[in-house]
Amino acid sequence: MRQESVLDFWLDYASTYSYPAAERISVLAHATGVRVRRRPFLLGPIFKAQGWDTSPFNIYPQKGEYMWRDVARICHALGLPFEPSAQQFPQNSLLAARTALVGFADGWGEDFSRAVYNAEFAEGLNIAEPGVIAAILKKLGLNAAHVMERAQSAANKALLRNETGEAQRLGIFGAPSFVTADGELFWGNDRLEPALAWAAR
Amino acid sequence: MRQESVLDFWLDYASTYSYPAAERISVLAHATGVRVRRRPFLLGPIFKAQGWDTSPFNIYPQKGEYMWRDVARICHALGLPFEPSAQQFPQNSLLAARTALVGFADGWGEDFSRAVYNAEFAEGLNIAEPGVIAAILKKLGLNAAHVMERAQSAANKALLRNETGEAQRLGIFGAPSFVTADGELFWGNDRLEPALAWAAR
Repeated sequence: MRQESVLDFWLDYASTYSYPAAERISVLAHATGVRVRRRPFLLGPIFKAQGWDTSPFNIYPQKGEYMWRDVARICHALGLPFEPSAQQFPQNSLLAARTALVGFADGWGEDFSRAVYNAEFAEGLNIAEPGVIAAILKKLGLNAAHVMERAQSAANKALLRNETGEAQRLGIFGAPSFVTADGELFWGNDRLEPALAWAAR
Repeated sequence: MRQESVLDFWLDYASTYSYPAAERISVLAHATGVRVRRRPFLLGPIFKAQGWDTSPFNIYPQKGEYMWRDVARICHALGLPFEPSAQQFPQNSLLAARTALVGFADGWGEDFSRAVYNAEFAEGLNIAEPGVIAAILKKLGLNAAHVMERAQSAANKALLRNETGEAQRLGIFGAPSFVTADGELFWGNDRLEPALAWAAR
């Protein structure tokens, strides 16, 4: 029997283009018979290593203006609501990423991820606020206080640091990124299909 | 009768992703009933305005390493040869752009464009060398000396400066870029299809 194909989906909860990718990936992966591993990480430390203290979309305003228009068009074509907060970009995604790691260990990570992106980019909420994350957890039927305690444990903090280090080691410099079992890196929502095709070969 | 749809295809001859876009656009535009206007310009002055003295693919090595792999994969999938010179990136595209403007006025601009990209990215030649441009012109059955004299005229130099200024005014920050008649900007080879779809609406 052929070995199962796996694709790693590296996502940052502050990343605009990760939102449509997170919405699209399940159906497309199912159609190609590829199993997806979602791997939350933080772009911040990777940007810092490139000399950036914020998103390149803020540093290069023309690129930023284009990105907002481009993501709005992409979401519109997919029928996805897109009403991000005008005030805050990028949002601090540390708490969301830590909480997501608990969720992926427990089996509710995908639902949590999509709810986080929806809160941030469709409802205009700030995912750095513990209350926003707690409300998402409650909606998923979870004990928010208990989950967030685990999210903030030393072991879980170290896990996220390790994952971010692994992303850096793989040459990841943006999100979403996709990495196949044989080490092919694909960057961007628009590379989801070629990444899945590569993984399914 | 419905008015003809037009899409402006802004290209820099030093741009790797413009190569597959230039190869793909004619067939796709024909299929969607959109007329394409090819508009050569120079990214250099636009990069300078952002504080870059070379391509961001050189400034950010991880992004650069990814780009070479990504373009190789894209060309492989299209059956396009891709064997760029290892030494020179980005190449100086000034002479090619000036010559192309003469070609678009005279009707051989598209053939010239594709030959330039082929020389640069499939044959590993340096398009900054007048001999390389002259050889392309000769292969197209043109009087190379005469064309290159027109390319280097004061009026033609001013035309290229104006086109680059217009690109900047439109918010263009990379190549290839596509701009519809109603001002929608699309950036990247991977945005060719949505740009054509927008233009054809």
